[in-house]
Formats: sequence, structure tokens, C-alpha cells
Amino acid sequence: MAVYTEVSDEDLSAFLAGYDIGPLMSLKGIAEGVENTNYLLHTGAGYFILTLYEKRVAEGDLPFFLGLMEHLADRGVTCPLPVRNRAGQALGRLGGRPAAIVTFLEGMSVRRPEARHCGMLGEALGALHRAGSDFTLSRDNALSLAGWSSLYREAEPRADAVAPGLSATLAGELEYLARHWPTGLPAGVIHADLFPDNVFFLGGKLSGLIDFYFACRDFYAYDLAICLNAWCFEPDASFNVTKGMALIEGYRRARDLEPAEIEALPVLARGAALRFLLTRLVDWLDTRGGALVKKKDPMEYLKKLRFHQQASSARDYGLVG
Amino acid sequence: MAVYTEVSDEDLSAFLAGYDIGPLMSLKGIAEGVENTNYLLHTGAGYFILTLYEKRVAEGDLPFFLGLMEHLADRGVTCPLPVRNRAGQALGRLGGRPAAIVTFLEGMSVRRPEARHCGMLGEALGALHRAGSDFTLSRDNALSLAGWSSLYREAEPRADAVAPGLSATLAGELEYLARHWPTGLPAGVIHADLFPDNVFFLGGKLSGLIDFYFACRDFYAYDLAICLNAWCFEPDASFNVTKGMALIEGYRRARDLEPAEIEALPVLARGAALRFLLTRLVDWLDTRGGALVKKKDPMEYLKKLRFHQQASSARDYGLVG
Repeated sequence: MAVYTEVSDEDLSAFLAGYDIGPLMSLKGIAEGVENTNYLLHTGAGYFILTLYEKRVAEGDLPFFLGLMEHLADRGVTCPLPVRNRAGQALGRLGGRPAAIVTFLEGMSVRRPEARHCGMLGEALGALHRAGSDFTLSRDNALSLAGWSSLYREAEPRADAVAPGLSATLAGELEYLARHWPTGLPAGVIHADLFPDNVFFLGGKLSGLIDFYFACRDFYAYDLAICLNAWCFEPDASFNVTKGMALIEGYRRARDLEPAEIEALPVLARGAALRFLLTRLVDWLDTRGGALVKKKDPMEYLKKLRFHQQASSARDYGLVG
Repeated sequence: MAVYTEVSDEDLSAFLAGYDIGPLMSLKGIAEGVENTNYLLHTGAGYFILTLYEKRVAEGDLPFFLGLMEHLADRGVTCPLPVRNRAGQALGRLGGRPAAIVTFLEGMSVRRPEARHCGMLGEALGALHRAGSDFTLSRDNALSLAGWSSLYREAEPRADAVAPGLSATLAGELEYLARHWPTGLPAGVIHADLFPDNVFFLGGKLSGLIDFYFACRDFYAYDLAICLNAWCFEPDASFNVTKGMALIEGYRRARDLEPAEIEALPVLARGAALRFLLTRLVDWLDTRGGALVKKKDPMEYLKKLRFHQQASSARDYGLVG
């Protein structure tokens, strides 16, 4: 949750004057997304999300993110569609920040996903990968191997205060992944943060995918591995193989997996677990005050990592056949 | 801003099944109100505010607050109307908290009110006092003289760390107010927290009053004194008498002031300033972590109090005639 930048009514009215979406009716700061300021905007033309991009999002990446949402929405992915102003621009400035208006998606995220949700999510993920395959812009994944090493160096001096031996575990895992990280897998645009918070369901169907601000170019199967981490573990950190099976089968209905992707799944799952373990650990150790965002427990991902370390093949995640 | 209690989709669906407002479409935590958890709720019947009452609101007071909003809305005050469920109840339970659904009001609060806003606000305040005059429930004002003394005792040991001499200033002011606080002024339901945040404007007109969770029985003119404090000072703590005049004249268009109320205005303004100075000071000194609410500077109200201490009559606030 986050409202970092407040918007005055005068500034907002001036900003909206550049758009063809009718007069301002109301604006409510909403608790969605942790990187940016989000408002629910009501105008004569309906409901929209107004996002002010905060410092954690690089301004140079915004054309990629907004262009991607437009590209995906055009190809039938139910994601927010950036609204262009009268000058044809999707990106403007408001309250001293880069700002954009996107369409509002109905639906609710589920707090306790069931296997049926995992199946729908998998299919939507495969469809997203297919729809993004001809997107012409690219963005490197800053949170892959090299990024993990930087995060490790940042967290290392105090990691053992969070859990004894954590520093050595992280160092060993980084070394393992550097040696075993796959190359040459099918790659393209991935969402890279498709947690249950970012997926809406309505009337028993998946109704929307949001928050594309980690999207980048990487292996498609790595995105699937992120979802295995985010959707298929129970609160006690046990892996629910029924959910894993539903997720993988759902994915394969939209985009089949190549043998090399299947083989790499355990190591990709390890990498995905390490990525969230490291970012959460750095946030956890960040003692700067005034955090409006509730910190997430890094230990959840240490437990997930331990599961992946003992997995021997994609069958351990529910792959059949 | 505040989202304290998260609501699961399952709990929410079960809760909504008791209402006649159609199926759930979406729910967004909103950054509105500091005492409670507020969500913007979209159902088949439209948009609503779903409020979960947190511990700072006494559960026993909720029938008063909800009954008051219903009473006022019935009499044409543009305030949220509580939605009753099929059992005829406006108050239910959700996520372990008392919860209510109220109608959504369009409009935007103004960050920098102008005299015209003060005039509209004054008229709406007078109309609110008239509309509430036949409301049958009552609630004492916990934040009047006796409440101020309790807050003072809580803040006193560390008050001078916030501003040198603050403790003595507060003690002297409390003593003055105890001796000069008026008795017998016209009284009834007051809003008691009608800050610019709680007043919406749309298309140049006042479109709504919200957040009735400090409402209580007290002198009507004390409510006006709260608004003089909240609406008529400039950011540099100077009093804008044009705004004061607009506020008072607007009020008198809806409900005229008796001579005793006019005479008491300076002392009521001192009490109102002390009330917000003390609650802000106690919040400021509260060092419990995890505050999701940005603390407000108590010193703003010390400056306002100093203005009121040198005011000699209601003319200093813009009263004419």
C-alpha cells in the first residue's frame, strides 16, 4: 500500500484538461502497488487508475512499461490500457512526478489461491508470453544473476542477524546458480512479479493482470518459476503439487514447454526464490524510517528455496508426462 | 491514510450476501480517514465505501454515528448514507471488526481552500446543525475540557522536548479555559472534525461532508470555532479574515448566531486550537512503531492558539455587524 505523492485539485484539473475523459468527479488514493502512488480516478468517462511514478521506477523504463500494456491489451490480454491524452501521449507529469492514466480493471485478487486459480493463472501467463512475443521494445532484467550478487553484497554484513547461517546459505546458492543457470531457453517479455496481488478474478474467471513495473526480457520458464513460488506454496511453506500441476498444465494450454525448459525448472525455481529472498532481505534490513509499506518476511522465501534445493526434476512441481 | 484490516475475498462475499446491492465487482483499500479501514467497494449496484471500524472507535458509539448519517441524509445533508442489509441492519461484522457500507460521494477535497469554499462550508455547517437538531441519540464530547486535561497529563512530561515552554503554555491555557469556558450556549449534534479533508466540492459546489466519527453533542458555535481554525489560517499561520468572514456569513445564512455565541467565539476558538494541539502532541510523542499514518505537526496549532489568545472579539474573525 502506498500513497507517496499527494495531488492538489488544481494540478489534477490542469492535468486532466489535456485528456478527453470528461470532467473530474473524484479521486481516492488507493492502497495498491508498493512502488508507485496510485489513485482511483473518476471522471465523466468512467473509472481509471492514475499512477504517479516514484523514484524506485526508472523514468527511462516508462515507455517500455506503458508500451507493453498497450501492446498486450491490443492482443486481448486483460491488462490496464494506458489512456493517451489529446497530444497522443500516454505519459505526462503531475505533482512533480511522471504520471499516467490507465483503464480500471474489475475483479478481486484472491488471498488463498486454489488449484483452479493456479490453472487460470498459468493459462493467462502463457497467453501473456505469446502476446508479448512481437513487442519491439526490450528491457533487461536487473534482478537476475548479476543483480542478485549486488543485493547479496548489500545484505551480507547483517544477514546472519536475521537468521544464523543465512549469509553462507546465500553465498552457496549464488555460487550454485552461477554454475547451473541455463542459457538459450526461449525468452521474451515476462511479467516477473505475477503474485496473487497482481491477478484479479471475477465471477470465477481471471479478469485482469496488473502491475507490469518489473516486466523485462528473460526466459519464459523463469516467469513460470516465479509463479510456482508465489502461488503453489501453502502458508506452512509446504509445496502443493496439485496447484503446481494446475499451474503448469494451464500454462501449457497457452504455450507448450520445450524439453530444455522442463529440465531447467528446478534451477529456475531456485533462482526465483533467491530473487525474492534477497529483495525482501534488503528491504527488511533497511532501517530508514517512515516506511508506509509493510515489510514482507524474507524467511518465507528461505523455506521455499530449501524446497527447491531438494527438488530433482519438474515432476516435483507437478509436471505430468 | 490507512488500511489496517485486510479483507479476504471469501469473507467479503459472505458479508455481501446479506445485502441487496448485487455481486462484488472490485474492492480497493483507500487512503481516507485515519481512524478506520476504508475500502472503495464496487458491486452490481454501484460504488460504495466499506468501513471496518478499528479500535480507536468505540463500538458502542457506532449506532450513534450511523444513525446520525442516516438522519442527516434523510434531511438533505449530502453525507454518506449507511446501506442497510436485508435484515435491516446498517452495522455488521467483517474481518473480525464491526463494519458498515455507506454510499459513495463524488467530489474532491480542496487543499488550499479559498474564501468561496469557506462560505459554502459555513452554510453547510449551519445546515448540518439544523438538520441534526431533532436527532434523538446523543454522545458526549470526550474531547472537551475534561478530555483536554487528560491529554495534557499524558503529554506533559515530554512536551518541552517538542517546544521549550510548551508545558507551561498548555497548563496556563487549560486554566484559562476552565475559568472562561461558556455555559448555556445553543447545543446539539456537531461534526467536531470538519477539516478540508472531510469536505468535497464538485463543479464549484460543496458536494459532500464525510467522516462523522468525532460527532457528538456540544455547542454549535464550538463547531464553527473548529472550522475557523481548520479553514481560515494561511500556511504561515496568519489568520485570513476574509475567509473568516465568508465562513461566519455562510453559517449565518443557514443558522443565525445568538449574541452569547458571538461573544464566546474567541474563547471557543482557543479551546478548539488547544484540542487539536493536544491530540496532535500526544500522537507526535507516541513512539510506538509501525505508524501508517503521517503525523501532523502540533506546532501549527500552537501558532493558531497564540492568534486566538490576542483576539478580543468575534470581529477579529471577520464578524460584521
